[in-house]
Amino acid sequence: MVRSSRLVGAMTAQNQPPQNQPPQKQPALRRAAILAVGSELLTPQRTDTNSLHITDQLNRLGIDVVLKMIVGDDRDELTEAFRAARRRADLVVLSGGLGPTDDDVTREVVAAALGRTLDEDPAITEQIRARFLARGITTAMPEINRRQAMVPEGATVLPNTRGSAPGLWLEDGDAVVLLLPGPPREMMPMLATVVDGSLRARTHADVLVRRVIKITGRVESQTDEALQPLYREWERATPPLAATILAALGQIEVHLSMRAPPDAAAALLDAAVVRTVAVLGDDAFSIDGRALERVVGDLLVQQQMRIALAESCTGGLLTSRLTDVPGSSRYVRHSVIAYSNDAKTGLLGVSPALIAEHGAVSEQVALAMADGIRAQASVEVGVGVTGIAGPDGGSPQKPVGTVAIAAVTAAATRSRVFRFPGEREQVKFQASQAALDLVRRMLSP
Amino acid sequence: MVRSSRLVGAMTAQNQPPQNQPPQKQPALRRAAILAVGSELLTPQRTDTNSLHITDQLNRLGIDVVLKMIVGDDRDELTEAFRAARRRADLVVLSGGLGPTDDDVTREVVAAALGRTLDEDPAITEQIRARFLARGITTAMPEINRRQAMVPEGATVLPNTRGSAPGLWLEDGDAVVLLLPGPPREMMPMLATVVDGSLRARTHADVLVRRVIKITGRVESQTDEALQPLYREWERATPPLAATILAALGQIEVHLSMRAPPDAAAALLDAAVVRTVAVLGDDAFSIDGRALERVVGDLLVQQQMRIALAESCTGGLLTSRLTDVPGSSRYVRHSVIAYSNDAKTGLLGVSPALIAEHGAVSEQVALAMADGIRAQASVEVGVGVTGIAGPDGGSPQKPVGTVAIAAVTAAATRSRVFRFPGEREQVKFQASQAALDLVRRMLSP
Repeated sequence: MVRSSRLVGAMTAQNQPPQNQPPQKQPALRRAAILAVGSELLTPQRTDTNSLHITDQLNRLGIDVVLKMIVGDDRDELTEAFRAARRRADLVVLSGGLGPTDDDVTREVVAAALGRTLDEDPAITEQIRARFLARGITTAMPEINRRQAMVPEGATVLPNTRGSAPGLWLEDGDAVVLLLPGPPREMMPMLATVVDGSLRARTHADVLVRRVIKITGRVESQTDEALQPLYREWERATPPLAATILAALGQIEVHLSMRAPPDAAAALLDAAVVRTVAVLGDDAFSIDGRALERVVGDLLVQQQMRIALAESCTGGLLTSRLTDVPGSSRYVRHSVIAYSNDAKTGLLGVSPALIAEHGAVSEQVALAMADGIRAQASVEVGVGVTGIAGPDGGSPQKPVGTVAIAAVTAAATRSRVFRFPGEREQVKFQASQAALDLVRRMLSP
Repeated sequence: MVRSSRLVGAMTAQNQPPQNQPPQKQPALRRAAILAVGSELLTPQRTDTNSLHITDQLNRLGIDVVLKMIVGDDRDELTEAFRAARRRADLVVLSGGLGPTDDDVTREVVAAALGRTLDEDPAITEQIRARFLARGITTAMPEINRRQAMVPEGATVLPNTRGSAPGLWLEDGDAVVLLLPGPPREMMPMLATVVDGSLRARTHADVLVRRVIKITGRVESQTDEALQPLYREWERATPPLAATILAALGQIEVHLSMRAPPDAAAALLDAAVVRTVAVLGDDAFSIDGRALERVVGDLLVQQQMRIALAESCTGGLLTSRLTDVPGSSRYVRHSVIAYSNDAKTGLLGVSPALIAEHGAVSEQVALAMADGIRAQASVEVGVGVTGIAGPDGGSPQKPVGTVAIAAVTAAATRSRVFRFPGEREQVKFQASQAALDLVRRMLSP
């Protein structure tokens, strides 16, 4: 057997395929660049967001995104950007610019940059024509749509189930160039098909796995300090585990990631999540991507409780977030948005004397609102929120951002006054977040 | 005078400065590339948004953004990205990577790419030290913060009023490279100072001016078709006027833009806006950036009316959007979110027989909800929304996305049943948009 193994070695050195691997196996793709095409993406109003979904899909296959670029509908700019992307990556994913108009230059620019001719594929022309007929458009397919049937030499056409622009898969040596349509509802199913097929066949054993732990009740630096010992241990581990802390409005996220074979990465990250949660305690509310409103909803379902809410300064945002969760009609009974004191007294039974004594923005009034809505709706959990979202209405004692929140069940009562920074919409969001968190902590076993 | 004018011509042809301009004037900056630095911006959870604000500020100075790039905290990637950006643009704006840690490489990479040495500026070290003392940190400034005092040869330091990382202004031939901190609250004031100072001095007479017209009640292709005659006229005009149609959830936007001297651009665009609105009629609801909820709020203020809302499937989102507008407590009285039939009958006085006859999702029940909340709150305008947000609850007759909306005043009644596409959150948003639009059209003079 020694002779045979030598033979294999010799063949490999001469660029022959080794015998124990399929002969034409191409190298795994590791480094991706994502290029979004569209002049509107260079305005102050819009930017590329497709790349977030594309990154997620590529990371799951172990492909790192090393560069993102955004260019307008301009041949020269796109040519240069494509070349720069191709130099840095072995997978270039372009989205946008596949439409039928003169503005849409992605197909032509990529073909030219790769030195390929463009020819019309009559089958695609027929599909587009059929699409027009199916939509009940009786006039003939516009001539401009013929552009969408142009296919670069050697390209594989990716059908578009939701629009007229087909995608394209091109190989350039060992590299891959993927052209996807810009509209997310067309891009996503096409990418899903590619990820499950040709792209998966071009990936290696290691994947990039991520876990996100969501936290309330701590700021970024406190979280960082608490996790330092774990960080130091993880960065020396083999394979190393990367940890990042990101602060968002009303919550902190700890992102853990690792590149390893899928099973190993999953097991190592699960263990790391357990250790992180052990350090953070009750402040960690989600380790599986669930948003706070869903965590609260799941607690209500588990404990067979229904909820009713009395909102003032959050103006409906709190109930809107709770009802963003599918199935929330099982536990959200009703809410009253009491934007005036009359509504607080008339609809929620808060006594005018209480408001006069403590002010509309007070823990006492928040508690009375929570009690009032709970009794009115005959539910297990009542919540009251009253505060000053700004920009007007603040005072030295109760500045803009002061919010009183209460949550009440038959067994427990929680209430607290917060002072949130930021503009009106930020105050509203943070107040809704704090109210959800108060309910979560009250209902947590 | 003929001779003198010939002389000027001759000098200009020989690259001498024309006599009527200052002699050392550097050429105006026209083309910008924006480079966001940070590995977190390459994850599925985050992306660069600083560039939206930067683009807005540069456009106001007549500088086009031709390219945006996003790279991680990696010397090689950043070096290549910076070189690619510099090739395409005469202004490169980098944000991020100016912090004190090993990850922060922007300063060093840019200095190396431009062939400049980096030297510590003792004045900056002192400022950072003072910042630490002012924050009550008694221990000495960490040694790593000294990195932030390193300044490339020939750079101008831009003070940071809100953090420890100073910005940098570098000239590279006729081009400018601007380094800004990543956190928006540090970046924005620094950019404002540069825009009002050194950057304005490097711009030309023309500015890029934009107008946005927001539309409901038409889809993208109908809007496009109606505006085709104007488009054709505008693209042949001197200077040309660019028009783009962008579809967002529940509304269409027409963006008009032009590069010209400020006064001329403003006048020509104002005239173009008037002509566009003449074509689109009542469907155009905003020409000054106002969102639909603010347009409705302004109509309520003008007509001294107050509003109360009965929401079902929108779950509070409609009232939350209305109360996002500062000062909305003047006209938003209260709302009831009736997520159960009991709440519709008990709180809003909708008769159980009406629900039994027409179903909870019907124009009749929406009208009864609007009447009920209007009477209960003693206000001028009542709104009722009832529908099926999904994913459950649909039927062949009333599929997911069916929403009935009604708006009522003493003088008028409007109601309509819609069928919205998309997931739960999209249905909620479109329903809130349609309800605001119904009120807008009812109250429009």
